Amino acid sequence: MNIDGKPYRTIWLAEDGWSVEIIDQTRLPHELVIVSLRTMEDAGRAIKTMQVRGAPLIGATAAYGLCLALRADASDEAIDQAVAFLAQQRPTAVNLRWALEEMRNTVRNLPRDRRVAAAYARAVEICEDDIKTNRAIGAHGLKAILVAAEHKQAAGPVNILTHCNAGWLACVDWGTATAPIYEAHGRGIPLHIWVDETRPRNQGAALTAFELGAHGVPHTIIVDNAGGHLMQQGLVDLCLVGADRVTTNGDAANKIGTYLKALAAKDNGVPFYVALPHSTIDWTLAAGHAIPIEERAPEEVLVMTGRTKEGNIVPVEIAAPGSSARNDAFDVTPARLITGLVTERGVCAASREGLVSLYPERNS
Amino acid sequence: MNIDGKPYRTIWLAEDGWSVEIIDQTRLPHELVIVSLRTMEDAGRAIKTMQVRGAPLIGATAAYGLCLALRADASDEAIDQAVAFLAQQRPTAVNLRWALEEMRNTVRNLPRDRRVAAAYARAVEICEDDIKTNRAIGAHGLKAILVAAEHKQAAGPVNILTHCNAGWLACVDWGTATAPIYEAHGRGIPLHIWVDETRPRNQGAALTAFELGAHGVPHTIIVDNAGGHLMQQGLVDLCLVGADRVTTNGDAANKIGTYLKALAAKDNGVPFYVALPHSTIDWTLAAGHAIPIEERAPEEVLVMTGRTKEGNIVPVEIAAPGSSARNDAFDVTPARLITGLVTERGVCAASREGLVSLYPERNS
Repeated sequence: MNIDGKPYRTIWLAEDGWSVEIIDQTRLPHELVIVSLRTMEDAGRAIKTMQVRGAPLIGATAAYGLCLALRADASDEAIDQAVAFLAQQRPTAVNLRWALEEMRNTVRNLPRDRRVAAAYARAVEICEDDIKTNRAIGAHGLKAILVAAEHKQAAGPVNILTHCNAGWLACVDWGTATAPIYEAHGRGIPLHIWVDETRPRNQGAALTAFELGAHGVPHTIIVDNAGGHLMQQGLVDLCLVGADRVTTNGDAANKIGTYLKALAAKDNGVPFYVALPHSTIDWTLAAGHAIPIEERAPEEVLVMTGRTKEGNIVPVEIAAPGSSARNDAFDVTPARLITGLVTERGVCAASREGLVSLYPERNS
Repeated sequence: MNIDGKPYRTIWLAEDGWSVEIIDQTRLPHELVIVSLRTMEDAGRAIKTMQVRGAPLIGATAAYGLCLALRADASDEAIDQAVAFLAQQRPTAVNLRWALEEMRNTVRNLPRDRRVAAAYARAVEICEDDIKTNRAIGAHGLKAILVAAEHKQAAGPVNILTHCNAGWLACVDWGTATAPIYEAHGRGIPLHIWVDETRPRNQGAALTAFELGAHGVPHTIIVDNAGGHLMQQGLVDLCLVGADRVTTNGDAANKIGTYLKALAAKDNGVPFYVALPHSTIDWTLAAGHAIPIEERAPEEVLVMTGRTKEGNIVPVEIAAPGSSARNDAFDVTPARLITGLVTERGVCAASREGLVSLYPERNS
């Protein structure tokens, strides 16, 4: 998407044709810093320190990390070492391990002198596939926005509420929940996005607001407490969020707080859509209560990072000293609160029947 | 309530018998600073700069401010000037104007040499009345906690979720939503309080967590996004919140985000109580949609104040530069989501019938 009119991805090959460049997301939203990755270690550090985050982007970075490793040493041993090294940078990231296995399978049966070129070709393909998937989600989700726009006639822009960052910054480009937004914006449909701050890590206020602002999509940041009131006031036409895992009955685990917005949407008759690529569907789980919910460090609640008047980025304690915090990262929105699931194959009901209608090969 | 074992109120007469001392709430939760008010101007500044906040406490401070003014000049003109000066420090605070009129009515028909003593007597009475009201709310709300405790048997403490600060720091002592909690804690009922952070001003993480911690009530801070998930997990036995205004049908305006918690409570079968003194009931409004909702400055959303590692209290920008914010201060929880209203006269249904059963004199 654009930053001040110039198209960017989150990761790309540099002009030299071999080194890799990324946007350093630890500096956002305060500064736009491009970092060059020239070794496997550079790629590992980018993943570990969260200069890149979001499952698809982590996978893409690992893929290029393997390319950089092979440039230094294309032996079988080097491949295995590189895969092991890169995989351990974020031990629980499923997409990271998937991308590394893809890369290993691509190169291991080739003669050494063809491995580097093949690796780069596959890494490029992994990035392009992510973009293709997200654009398809955008095309399908667009229909829900068009329905809302038609419903409103010319009564102002379509107001869409989103939670957390399921944006292009989490992917290679376009994003999942944001893809229909960028698609509609590109077609000139007047939009306005309510951006949930998304405590405790503030991915909404920091990342989603940044990317929408940089691309020129009108938006307003609200605290996570505000969405229900805005829906009561008729100021939300549509909710559109991402997901971390969707079970076969259509329950959706997403960033903590999503469930509260879905309840308010239901209470006020506002359509609530969840956008996801096929890789987010967990065909092994029958319902959301089986999804393990990660509990993260209390410091994310008790300490906030921001920019001082002098321009320094510093952490500050915001809570009563001595108080503890609990920090569940996700919650589960029951399928009954979800209007539809938007995938790269289309929009379906949040149910086993709905999912199988899009993925009939899974009907076993 | 206690701070480290020593009983405090938020405002009290100093040992000299005439000057007034307050806890400077702008320094909480980071430091406990006692400020001495020796002139009407001191009292005005305390109100204006929010060293004192919360309707009952603002009223009490204004009452003492008039006492201090009369010590300097007990003439009729001085009374009127003092009332006008103090009233303008927080122009929309209803309780402030009420307390000042009470004080004027108390002293204006007395000879000058008896006005100061009468004023102090009335100011003390206003403070004692607030405490009496809150203790009665505590006694009535206790029953809901006892029911929850009985229901749990010995299966851990009663888990109560609260939002914002309807605590003793907003009153002279005890608080409204916190009064039943302190009452139960004092009787040895095992409790644990989930403290909603309460963005954007963080009154939960800063003030409620401070006062519960200082008094020794076990508690845990959570982000505003988390309460729904905790209810889904069976980790909340009871919700107990305050109110800024309750209409005659039982709808309750309270800090933004209260509505979302009430929806989650309903969805999970968790009792949801609203605690309030009679002065919070607006007998002129039939339903919550008529309550005007204050929209506050976007900076409260975009800028957060906290303590750096070096111990300095500084504001930091937390959002994407250039993004705007919307900051509605309250939302309205419909009566259908409220299990009961807890007032100084008892617990009633959130309905006209319920309210009139406690306040039959209003049945006109």
